[in-house]
Amino acid sequence: MGIKLSSSNYGKSRVRLVRITRGEEAHHLKDISVDIQFEGDFEEAHTHGDNRKVLPTDTMKNTVYALAGQQPVGEIEEFGLRLTEHFLATNPQVRNVRVAMSERLWARILVEGQPHPWAFVGGRPEKRTALVAATRAGHSTQAGIEDLLVLKSYESAFEGYIQDRYTTLKETRDRILATVVKANWSYSLRDVAFGRCWEGVRGVLLQTFAEHRSESVQHTLFAMAGAVLDAFGAVEVIRLSMPNKHHLPVDLTPFGMENHNEVFVATDEPYGLIEAVVRRD
Amino acid sequence: MGIKLSSSNYGKSRVRLVRITRGEEAHHLKDISVDIQFEGDFEEAHTHGDNRKVLPTDTMKNTVYALAGQQPVGEIEEFGLRLTEHFLATNPQVRNVRVAMSERLWARILVEGQPHPWAFVGGRPEKRTALVAATRAGHSTQAGIEDLLVLKSYESAFEGYIQDRYTTLKETRDRILATVVKANWSYSLRDVAFGRCWEGVRGVLLQTFAEHRSESVQHTLFAMAGAVLDAFGAVEVIRLSMPNKHHLPVDLTPFGMENHNEVFVATDEPYGLIEAVVRRD
Amino acid sequence: MGIKLSSSNYGKSRVRLVRITRGEEAHHLKDISVDIQFEGDFEEAHTHGDNRKVLPTDTMKNTVYALAGQQPVGEIEEFGLRLTEHFLATNPQVRNVRVAMSERLWARILVEGQPHPWAFVGGRPEKRTALVAATRAGHSTQAGIEDLLVLKSYESAFEGYIQDRYTTLKETRDRILATVVKANWSYSLRDVAFGRCWEGVRGVLLQTFAEHRSESVQHTLFAMAGAVLDAFGAVEVIRLSMPNKHHLPVDLTPFGMENHNEVFVATDEPYGLIEAVVRRD
Amino acid sequence: MGIKLSSSNYGKSRVRLVRITRGEEAHHLKDISVDIQFEGDFEEAHTHGDNRKVLPTDTMKNTVYALAGQQPVGEIEEFGLRLTEHFLATNPQVRNVRVAMSERLWARILVEGQPHPWAFVGGRPEKRTALVAATRAGHSTQAGIEDLLVLKSYESAFEGYIQDRYTTLKETRDRILATVVKANWSYSLRDVAFGRCWEGVRGVLLQTFAEHRSESVQHTLFAMAGAVLDAFGAVEVIRLSMPNKHHLPVDLTPFGMENHNEVFVATDEPYGLIEAVVRRD
Repeated sequence: MGIKLSSSNYGKSRVRLVRITRGEEAHHLKDISVDIQFEGDFEEAHTHGDNRKVLPTDTMKNTVYALAGQQPVGEIEEFGLRLTEHFLATNPQVRNVRVAMSERLWARILVEGQPHPWAFVGGRPEKRTALVAATRAGHSTQAGIEDLLVLKSYESAFEGYIQDRYTTLKETRDRILATVVKANWSYSLRDVAFGRCWEGVRGVLLQTFAEHRSESVQHTLFAMAGAVLDAFGAVEVIRLSMPNKHHLPVDLTPFGMENHNEVFVATDEPYGLIEAVVRRD
Repeated sequence: MGIKLSSSNYGKSRVRLVRITRGEEAHHLKDISVDIQFEGDFEEAHTHGDNRKVLPTDTMKNTVYALAGQQPVGEIEEFGLRLTEHFLATNPQVRNVRVAMSERLWARILVEGQPHPWAFVGGRPEKRTALVAATRAGHSTQAGIEDLLVLKSYESAFEGYIQDRYTTLKETRDRILATVVKANWSYSLRDVAFGRCWEGVRGVLLQTFAEHRSESVQHTLFAMAGAVLDAFGAVEVIRLSMPNKHHLPVDLTPFGMENHNEVFVATDEPYGLIEAVVRRD
Repeated sequence: MGIKLSSSNYGKSRVRLVRITRGEEAHHLKDISVDIQFEGDFEEAHTHGDNRKVLPTDTMKNTVYALAGQQPVGEIEEFGLRLTEHFLATNPQVRNVRVAMSERLWARILVEGQPHPWAFVGGRPEKRTALVAATRAGHSTQAGIEDLLVLKSYESAFEGYIQDRYTTLKETRDRILATVVKANWSYSLRDVAFGRCWEGVRGVLLQTFAEHRSESVQHTLFAMAGAVLDAFGAVEVIRLSMPNKHHLPVDLTPFGMENHNEVFVATDEPYGLIEAVVRRD
Repeated sequence: MGIKLSSSNYGKSRVRLVRITRGEEAHHLKDISVDIQFEGDFEEAHTHGDNRKVLPTDTMKNTVYALAGQQPVGEIEEFGLRLTEHFLATNPQVRNVRVAMSERLWARILVEGQPHPWAFVGGRPEKRTALVAATRAGHSTQAGIEDLLVLKSYESAFEGYIQDRYTTLKETRDRILATVVKANWSYSLRDVAFGRCWEGVRGVLLQTFAEHRSESVQHTLFAMAGAVLDAFGAVEVIRLSMPNKHHLPVDLTPFGMENHNEVFVATDEPYGLIEAVVRRD
């Protein structure tokens, strides 16, 4: 045929796991979705329909539940590592395994100010994510955050940009800046307090967003990334993706009114998309 | 033709308004989506293409922004009332107006423990809703909540139900109970502290869910509704819609393990849907 | 407590069924999602946690698959009727049953111009729907269509409407008219060729949309409804819901160009929503 | 700070364009969504808030509409190329431009069997896509298809795979194979009849899926890719992403029935995901 398999990967996505740990004082709840992908020696499966080296994706799914049955999930970065180690140990045909996880964040219901031991309410709307990529030579761990919605109504400008024949945007020293932060960062160390570090990075991203005097999304993105690298020596590189959720001031002059930067229409599309990778020099 | 217009309604949906109020100490942020619907004397528009009595939906949208320009939005129930009053006052052909609103809940970013004056982060994941329905004879106000995700890992049972030839479900004294509460309630009074009352209802719904010894979703739903009516004299009737977000225990016995009610697969479909209206006797 | 259960309903939603019928010449494929809702004597379940009259929603789901195992699904209106009959016959505590169905439409893959006997491709993007509502006194059947996307680029106007202080919309004799039709209609007869009739109604809706000289969405909606009632004596009443999917002409004058009604931005929100019920006089 | 911008990109997404071309006989309709991304010399924007080299994403959006005003869109691959050429010619600071497009496919409404000249209905549910990536050294063009839903109810098997301690899946010679094909392919030639070629690739993908005796998704994916490379000399490499949309046979034995491979539950999650890149040797 003169054709060849250049690369391939396969696995199971959206394996949804809820793990309850029933402590004496309180129950603990972990709610995650797991995606697994293998690369390796799967050429015969493609070219000849020979499945002898194929671990079914159904078995990958079962493995997630079986490992969650052996012990509590713990931090998702650790659970991801246990999964990759299992798959590499038992599947010589696999060259690398990627396990991506997304965690829903629950909070305890407060009853008369006290956190309830076994009743939960949806907590922060963002997701905590992690990605463990492993080969027999080693592994890398990324932590991340998705759907972190932020908005500031002051100290955001956009001016001094290129003007060409298709420019209609007006320069401004005072606009709403809103975005849904997606971030992920790689750890250079093996031994990280993943939960505490994740909370710390989240806090620094938020604080920097709040305090930055923004000249553009690019400008604020870089400041946020830099602040994380400054604050956390274990973080080697950070990637930020920040869509510009445009809030357009409404023209009230046809109604004989002025808009003192108070009335906006929020729009979902079109949207600017600003992305960068920032690392230590 | 021998056909007639039996009923009709029209309006504008998804009018997205962000209103910033720039106080001296801090900015305030209101983020809502508004749906407006008219009923009235619109037969000629349908039957003859005569638009003389039609207020364009584009003008409805403009009116939302114009009214938001005149003064801060305030509680959504109040903003809805201002809108219905405006439309009824200026449109004699309109018999009734319904304004439905959905509010996104933001929180202030904390910087060193202090709420920031003009920087916000996505807060609770649920939505606050309101519906004002008005005619020239008066109006009614409903408040509501949507997407209130809750889960309890203890004190939830389901047993003693009908068994027929198609039954395979096993009875249990210990299951996860999870749902996404959608609630709305009507006020019998005109003069309600809408914001405070909404927070109160939300708190009672959560506390009752947490503390109830549940024999079924129906059982817990009724307890939640009753607790709201007990606690808030201004609430006349409450409607609850609670999908049963099934969490199925995973059978680990094929792997030589037991599942002590700790490992679950979360599913989105199919789902039970339990709804009721509860009122004062 | 002084409170009472005013009304209640419960059931199973999103029961997804794919039924293959393996004929000698070809396979037939039915792909539906079923929602079931009961009303009846369920007060004790709510007030006392007594489940003795509760048929679990899990059993409702099983019943869908069991009935699909007994014979091919046939037209969804017929399958819905079989389900309601089963539930009423076996559940004396149930007063009424509603079965709502949504069918995905597949087409056969063409191989050298010939329809393949057992390979299918996603067909028309719209959904066919049906709703059977039954009590022991009888039943009613609605058929419907959802997500029927249509657009016309000529013979659509909107002018002569109310102008007030908040009007900014310009009158036009030539605009794009686009909508996503949602329709459902009730049959007055018991004995209808449901599949043929559904195709017929769909055809009349499309043809009327295409040929109508539209003065507004209301005007075209009424014409479409009237044409269906004219053409199909078995249809008693029809409801149409038509969001106005606005296509806004782009102002090209800042670029020294004119827009001869050729360049549009398609928007999803805000949107007009026009609805009506039309019946025989 | 000891940190540096490692890479960055920015642009506008979801620029929705509907272009009507009003021919004498008929109108032509093009409905696309455009995403634009720049890479280049944008370090100062990030590090110093200096926007002098920044073309606003708002201007990118305007450019899409302006170019669509100059002439009909034509094939999306051609429109993408015009956009990249414009941006590179006018923005020396830009090193590369990527324009990704997604086209909604409309069909003409049939009136008495004849295609209507200016009224359209949503056509095939899949999307046609294209990606043009350009630098000053040249450009590459990918065409693609998304959301191509296919299902076969015969000649699909999965057996002979690895069995381990977590295996529960049963081997089968007869299962439903369903997927939502996402494909994209690169052209080695400059001068391609893009529309005709796209239709041809779509046809070969469908025919091969229909006729293949499948031993796994991998096996069928490779056959589909190979058939495209065989049939179209202009195609250099093709990437296929095929989620396994599992259809699980329902166990009817608890109801005293057998399931002769006729009754299935369709599931969205979890799902297998199989991907490969296939090229000429």
